[in-house]
Amino acid sequence: MAGSTGNFHKIGDLAAHVGGTVLGDAGRLIDRCHGLMGAAPTDITFVSNVKYMRQLATTDAGCVVVGRQVNQASIGRQEKPPLTFIQTDDPYFAFRQIVVLMHGFRRHAAVGISPLAHIASSARLGKNVNIHPFAYVGENVIVGDGCNIYSGVTIMDDAVLGAECILYPSCTIYEQCVLGNRVILHAGVVIGSDGYGFATHKGVHHKIPQIGNVILEDDVEIGGNSVVERAAMETTRIGMGTKLGNGVVIGHNCHIGQHNLLVSQVGIAGSTSTGHHVVLAGQVGVAGHLHIGNMVTAAAQTGIAGDILEKQVVWGTPSIEIHQAKRVFAQLAHLPELVKRVRALEAQLEKLKPGGDHAEPGG
Amino acid sequence: MAGSTGNFHKIGDLAAHVGGTVLGDAGRLIDRCHGLMGAAPTDITFVSNVKYMRQLATTDAGCVVVGRQVNQASIGRQEKPPLTFIQTDDPYFAFRQIVVLMHGFRRHAAVGISPLAHIASSARLGKNVNIHPFAYVGENVIVGDGCNIYSGVTIMDDAVLGAECILYPSCTIYEQCVLGNRVILHAGVVIGSDGYGFATHKGVHHKIPQIGNVILEDDVEIGGNSVVERAAMETTRIGMGTKLGNGVVIGHNCHIGQHNLLVSQVGIAGSTSTGHHVVLAGQVGVAGHLHIGNMVTAAAQTGIAGDILEKQVVWGTPSIEIHQAKRVFAQLAHLPELVKRVRALEAQLEKLKPGGDHAEPGG
Amino acid sequence: MAGSTGNFHKIGDLAAHVGGTVLGDAGRLIDRCHGLMGAAPTDITFVSNVKYMRQLATTDAGCVVVGRQVNQASIGRQEKPPLTFIQTDDPYFAFRQIVVLMHGFRRHAAVGISPLAHIASSARLGKNVNIHPFAYVGENVIVGDGCNIYSGVTIMDDAVLGAECILYPSCTIYEQCVLGNRVILHAGVVIGSDGYGFATHKGVHHKIPQIGNVILEDDVEIGGNSVVERAAMETTRIGMGTKLGNGVVIGHNCHIGQHNLLVSQVGIAGSTSTGHHVVLAGQVGVAGHLHIGNMVTAAAQTGIAGDILEKQVVWGTPSIEIHQAKRVFAQLAHLPELVKRVRALEAQLEKLKPGGDHAEPGG
Repeated sequence: MAGSTGNFHKIGDLAAHVGGTVLGDAGRLIDRCHGLMGAAPTDITFVSNVKYMRQLATTDAGCVVVGRQVNQASIGRQEKPPLTFIQTDDPYFAFRQIVVLMHGFRRHAAVGISPLAHIASSARLGKNVNIHPFAYVGENVIVGDGCNIYSGVTIMDDAVLGAECILYPSCTIYEQCVLGNRVILHAGVVIGSDGYGFATHKGVHHKIPQIGNVILEDDVEIGGNSVVERAAMETTRIGMGTKLGNGVVIGHNCHIGQHNLLVSQVGIAGSTSTGHHVVLAGQVGVAGHLHIGNMVTAAAQTGIAGDILEKQVVWGTPSIEIHQAKRVFAQLAHLPELVKRVRALEAQLEKLKPGGDHAEPGG
Repeated sequence: MAGSTGNFHKIGDLAAHVGGTVLGDAGRLIDRCHGLMGAAPTDITFVSNVKYMRQLATTDAGCVVVGRQVNQASIGRQEKPPLTFIQTDDPYFAFRQIVVLMHGFRRHAAVGISPLAHIASSARLGKNVNIHPFAYVGENVIVGDGCNIYSGVTIMDDAVLGAECILYPSCTIYEQCVLGNRVILHAGVVIGSDGYGFATHKGVHHKIPQIGNVILEDDVEIGGNSVVERAAMETTRIGMGTKLGNGVVIGHNCHIGQHNLLVSQVGIAGSTSTGHHVVLAGQVGVAGHLHIGNMVTAAAQTGIAGDILEKQVVWGTPSIEIHQAKRVFAQLAHLPELVKRVRALEAQLEKLKPGGDHAEPGG
Repeated sequence: MAGSTGNFHKIGDLAAHVGGTVLGDAGRLIDRCHGLMGAAPTDITFVSNVKYMRQLATTDAGCVVVGRQVNQASIGRQEKPPLTFIQTDDPYFAFRQIVVLMHGFRRHAAVGISPLAHIASSARLGKNVNIHPFAYVGENVIVGDGCNIYSGVTIMDDAVLGAECILYPSCTIYEQCVLGNRVILHAGVVIGSDGYGFATHKGVHHKIPQIGNVILEDDVEIGGNSVVERAAMETTRIGMGTKLGNGVVIGHNCHIGQHNLLVSQVGIAGSTSTGHHVVLAGQVGVAGHLHIGNMVTAAAQTGIAGDILEKQVVWGTPSIEIHQAKRVFAQLAHLPELVKRVRALEAQLEKLKPGGDHAEPGG
């Protein structure tokens, strides 16, 4: 867990950094970012999820980054001394800016090119590249300036990395794949393995050569042990700024749009495309040869079996519009009672029918 | 993406290679296989999915491999010059044969045994084996002729590989596991890790030694980051010709039959067996101690909690026959309206009852 | 598969070892543990699942560990000679004790510190540590006594391992993560990769530095290719004795309790906590910021979207109490017929209404 940065910041300075307004003691000193739970008097923290708002009544945090609507009066804090707030328009993003300022990102040691790495003689390495022991860089590979390649990474022949990519341990990039700038691959990620392509003939599944590649555009980040298959013939593409969680699988020939969020364990079958700003929550599955429109959101575990129009929010397997899905699921738990009600209706109606037990009121 | 092969083939020769019939210019020259979208005049492509058939009206492809029923008249191509077709009985397989002929499979560099690999002195290596830097081959391991073992692969003691296996980077084979001939493991695959076996006693989960192994029969291919657990005592087996996608998990003691297709993110719990030609689509889950009959197919995300008889096609959690499942899901989205209809019936019936508001028509 | 141990044990001695009672020939000799199917006359096996009880009629096993209620009379064995049993209170745990006695756990070769490993000069290694070729141990890492670190493992700077941990090939431990004693990580496991934390601002997903860590308490075991994200600011924690299957993903800031069983392909989103003895079956998904109470069980593929109270057993997406879920799923398959019944009721009621075709019985 993060310790003190050893470096104190005035709350007023932090507020200025994020364009926020201080409510309280702008001169107070802060040396660490921390979650709301357990925050100490020299910590800065934040609340953006209303679920945690009531913890503001008791926290000992030195400062809390909040939305414009939160203030001393709104939080029901009675026993403890008043809190110091930084009010902002977007507290989550503002707090992120403060974390970057105070703690920053992981520092990558300037190890240079390890003599224990294997670098093919035809590979071309940019400036300020760090390559750790037991990394493998194949023939004709191009590594851009400022890349960090950790232990156990394999980059097969003819792959290309842009500038400032970070490849964590034991990633594999298959041949001819292309990474843009600032691409981050967490440990165990596989880029460009063969697509699941077999032609079944007389009961035998014949492997189809997968002669395409993968392109990851700028600022793509991919979580641990995810897999992106290479295209059968052209390119599997992940658009600029798109972030994949852990254990995600992207099938061959997919074209994933820009600024998508594909959360952990999502699976997308081959030849499907997505627009921009698509969000697929955890364990969502998408069938092949579909198109998911711009700004579509799918809730966790949704199974998508048909095209989804722009801006739709969907849930369920097969997926339906989320408000309808919520109504369906609310009723689904009562299905056994509904069956009983129908049975009761049938019995009552039987009695009301001409010839039924009590069906002849006028008889 | 695939470039020109630098080698031109006459369409007539390609048709002869696959037993197809040329409709159009058999002398035309082709130098690349390509998807239908964006195919150029010297490209050959194919259509087997009706979804893409209408693109035949406008494609610039030099040749299209199609089924016997497709011809110039059937495709509504008016603005563009006529297409040249190769008609075949099985266009997907025929096109695969042409990709193999024109592009072939990945070429594995004849690197021999890298001095940067670790090969135990008791290991026995066949002829024409390539072992890349940072691969680890344990004691008494046997590696068949023509195997390719990439960087970062670990083969633990007493494992056996048949001929012409390909182990992509950072795969792990635990001790005593056995691979047949032509087995392909993509990057990050784990074969023979301990089964999830714990005996819970007084609230503590006690690990059970997993003393069995895994056998992968001939022509098995396994996608990136999949895991096959070793048996508790005997053998976890994957049958000949079976293909696993990425992120698949096979539990200990499973016996997976021949020529199965287990698509990405499928999970099968321990001691389950499958017959031959079983197809489990993406994210399907199967409980333990079950049997899935020959030629069963399960649609994506299906959850199987009981034995499935031969040739059944199932969907849903818990799984049911797929036509019934489709009817169920079609109605499910309308469940809230059904509840309203039942409520309306109840209200109407209440009125019709003796003593109800309007229930005494003869009164 | 396991061969003979080369070491014979009297059934009476094995029974004494587990506090069991011999029914039959206590002097008979046993040299191997084996599953019930195919067990030979010098094998010991067990039955705890009633599903397999009928195989006792025909097995050739030398001895079967069973519950107190099983005996010669209860198994319908007629054609074969009588079986020898060891009756115990907990046959699965007793058999586990016998497997440990007779076969034991994997032996780790005493290879010491490989000259082909990279050990930072500031790392501190305990006694009897084995580190295989191509393992990487970073600056200031502490490795406890008796640890085994296999080929291709990367331990980044400032991480700490307790005593007797086993890290199988190609695992990655990110910086500052802490493992207790006897932690087992199977091949490809990733501990402490960055949490999926992005602040979206003006359509761009800005990475939030993930400055926390992961703590795995004593006796945690994690299956192949699972991923545990580091906390955004404090600690992602997996409690003592908890066992994760393969392909499991634990999001940042989760606090998983003690003695949990999280089966293969489970996914838990960020900031969720679980009590002790929670069981999540295969492919279960849990949303973020929730609490799952002590001793909760969720059946396979369950989707949990709200807090779950202690001792609940749940199933379905969204999850409901399991008995209710079973009733719902039983009716769900008949939903189309229910719709027909409602339609029939509507038609009948229409006729009964005043003004309907046959609605004037007294008219």
